[in-house]
Amino acid sequence: MRLCTLALASLCMAGPARADIPPLSEVAISTATALRDEHSTAGVAYGLVESLTTEVGPRMAGTEADVRAVAWARAKFEALGFDSVRVEPFSFPYWRRGHERGEVLSPFPQPLAVTALGGSEGTGDTPLEGEIVAFDSLAELQAAEPGAVEGKIVFITQRTQRFKDGRGYGLSVIGRSSGATEASKRGAVGLIIRSISTNSDRFPHTGMMRYAPDVKPIPAAAVSNPDADLLINMLGRGEPVRIRLDIDAETRGEAVSYNVIGDIVGRERPDEVVVIGGHLDSWDLGTGALDDGAGVGITMAAGAAILKQEQRPRRSVRVIAWGNEEQGLIGARAYAEAHAGQMSKHVLGAESDFGAGRVYALRAGVDARYWPVLEQIAAVLAPLGIAFEREGGGPGPDVIPLVQRGMPWAQLAQDGSDYFDYHHTANDTLDKIDSEALDQQAAAYAVLAFLAAEAEADFGRVPAQ
Amino acid sequence: MRLCTLALASLCMAGPARADIPPLSEVAISTATALRDEHSTAGVAYGLVESLTTEVGPRMAGTEADVRAVAWARAKFEALGFDSVRVEPFSFPYWRRGHERGEVLSPFPQPLAVTALGGSEGTGDTPLEGEIVAFDSLAELQAAEPGAVEGKIVFITQRTQRFKDGRGYGLSVIGRSSGATEASKRGAVGLIIRSISTNSDRFPHTGMMRYAPDVKPIPAAAVSNPDADLLINMLGRGEPVRIRLDIDAETRGEAVSYNVIGDIVGRERPDEVVVIGGHLDSWDLGTGALDDGAGVGITMAAGAAILKQEQRPRRSVRVIAWGNEEQGLIGARAYAEAHAGQMSKHVLGAESDFGAGRVYALRAGVDARYWPVLEQIAAVLAPLGIAFEREGGGPGPDVIPLVQRGMPWAQLAQDGSDYFDYHHTANDTLDKIDSEALDQQAAAYAVLAFLAAEAEADFGRVPAQ
Repeated sequence: MRLCTLALASLCMAGPARADIPPLSEVAISTATALRDEHSTAGVAYGLVESLTTEVGPRMAGTEADVRAVAWARAKFEALGFDSVRVEPFSFPYWRRGHERGEVLSPFPQPLAVTALGGSEGTGDTPLEGEIVAFDSLAELQAAEPGAVEGKIVFITQRTQRFKDGRGYGLSVIGRSSGATEASKRGAVGLIIRSISTNSDRFPHTGMMRYAPDVKPIPAAAVSNPDADLLINMLGRGEPVRIRLDIDAETRGEAVSYNVIGDIVGRERPDEVVVIGGHLDSWDLGTGALDDGAGVGITMAAGAAILKQEQRPRRSVRVIAWGNEEQGLIGARAYAEAHAGQMSKHVLGAESDFGAGRVYALRAGVDARYWPVLEQIAAVLAPLGIAFEREGGGPGPDVIPLVQRGMPWAQLAQDGSDYFDYHHTANDTLDKIDSEALDQQAAAYAVLAFLAAEAEADFGRVPAQ
Repeated sequence: MRLCTLALASLCMAGPARADIPPLSEVAISTATALRDEHSTAGVAYGLVESLTTEVGPRMAGTEADVRAVAWARAKFEALGFDSVRVEPFSFPYWRRGHERGEVLSPFPQPLAVTALGGSEGTGDTPLEGEIVAFDSLAELQAAEPGAVEGKIVFITQRTQRFKDGRGYGLSVIGRSSGATEASKRGAVGLIIRSISTNSDRFPHTGMMRYAPDVKPIPAAAVSNPDADLLINMLGRGEPVRIRLDIDAETRGEAVSYNVIGDIVGRERPDEVVVIGGHLDSWDLGTGALDDGAGVGITMAAGAAILKQEQRPRRSVRVIAWGNEEQGLIGARAYAEAHAGQMSKHVLGAESDFGAGRVYALRAGVDARYWPVLEQIAAVLAPLGIAFEREGGGPGPDVIPLVQRGMPWAQLAQDGSDYFDYHHTANDTLDKIDSEALDQQAAAYAVLAFLAAEAEADFGRVPAQ
């Protein structure tokens, strides 16, 4: 998952409920209940994540491994019996990471655990050396005296707070995404940030950043939480702290990747679709188990469960393994554009991209007249420990470009308390995943997608943005 | 801490207690009680570890940073007011680590998190490529069919179990120390082991290994726990798994390091000494906070507390920041040899080298006639949550060479439940340490050292080995 705006939460429109919305049928509820309690698919989601992380591993968009991931997803959709499987290409600037090393030069020489932020320029032929200047936050940098960082390396020290819903990420990630731009505007020669991380393991966390068009690109990297503490302790001695960054990274040329799409074709309204999915790409440091092998495995498994039912749902269920989410929802934006003409037929969308914790809440952004149908869905989900919450939440990141074109969304909110312990690090590996938790999520997605596709009613529209 | 034999546990000699052992005086007990409850030194141990990890950082024996660590320790002993501060040199073969990279070549290419074991040879100008062959343990490798590993890379998959007393380490570390020798004997071209680790973070754990004199040295490395799982999952597909190791490491020439010694000179029997300490060197991957900045900080702080008392204890208390423990108790062996003639005056020794967890037990290896004195010491320690255990335990690693020459030992056993989560990794950093836990340990060492030095009785001898 990358930066996810919550600005869309207001899309949960207010308005009176209407009595003319047809409720879900007893048969539909009964089928969904069976889906929920179905155990024949136990372990399917985990098996998919195991397969993806073992047989492909890290799969940053545009790499050779990304190509293998696309082939993997296509083959899995086919093996699971999806009615229609296809890929849809899109292109984007290719970012490459080479070596990366950091160290303190003075007053206390020692190595630093660093990683370049996605999209960062490298340090060139000569490593970058400079004095660091610490700021508690991006806002503090923006308020700095003119000249305060001229020729220096800005160090943003903000800590990311731990919350079940991961909102601490939203509070600190601006330093990652915009720090280099703000530092460069003020004459700094580089940026380091405390990793956007909720734990204290010595893994630097990567993640996307961007340069504003009018600033000189400067190298931007994250240090691990312990390294950030170390630098702060050094700065506490009162002497200048000089570091060296040796980063090989660049954005060069264009790459192509693909959204991989598996359709369960609806029996009555095949052109109307309920979209679920996760994103197929990962950062390059870990094996992308939590981010977002889990989401791909969960939603593929949910589709597989629906495929085992006696008949197809009324509408189509579309499972999408989104391409290049990490570098800016590239695949999702391409999909939304390519399918703009069919967006009115996209009745509901949800994405699993928040790790492997259990789902604890259903939230949605739909026309309020359709709350009664969501209440029926929520009643089926309740025995899974899932509450119906009428406020808050937002769509998964890859769903955003579709919601911006009017598609209603649902969210199966997961417990992400430890998500930012591992997110975007080398430590995002399979061992962090509990297979039974994935089963709970797969069941929840199966119920949601099936009932949304089976409903006589749709969910209205949300205001296009 | 490196491989620590428990074979010495039997040195706790049996025998009848005798009535002619003078007990500790009421004044001594009263002073020790004040030491225990003294809060003026709160935070001293943590401050020392913070200083060592911040101002020196990683300090592998023989490196430039090791030289800085020696200067640091000397300066700290002096600043704390020790009566006599000196260094004692010793030499050893110098091992150097350069770059290290691992990857799976086929069937599923992806990177591996690896680190060379201490003492390993590098892979030379050309990276080593080969098929891996997995064994559950060193014993299974030793039982393998002739030819089973010829030309291949042996992979020892044994897991290290978590125990409060860390004994899981003793059960698995043989694969690290002797794996390369046993693999080479059988014609293997390299060794990888599952890290001797109790957690599932993606840090490979280094640590010492040795080649038997008669075998061809082959590169030896550890992979992290998640990487070991990954390789096992790949092997489960039934195809050969080929990896590449690119390791720059070598043992070349001799280096010099130092034991740094701070004495508190006894008021009556200055030539009789009670030895406490930790080891000053660390591995190069982390900042050596737990291993063994903590032990150095704890025992220096204990000495500082004793120095604040109105008068010196009867005997001398010697705090030793041992040099080059990691590569084979090199400093301790040199000390034992250089001081062989005074070993009969070393009345008791203890080392803190098991991280930063609280002390929960006092154990000892002394002539059994002196148990009553230890019982008195234990009574003072009890309010710190420390039980007196009459069986088990063993001396800290650097104390072993002295115990082998007859010195009685004590052990302030720490809770090491999470010690092997961080041990010998890049993740051994200051944030893993709780300052209050260090205070408890420093108080315990102060009480033990003071009362052992103040006792009219000594603790006899243990059988020399």
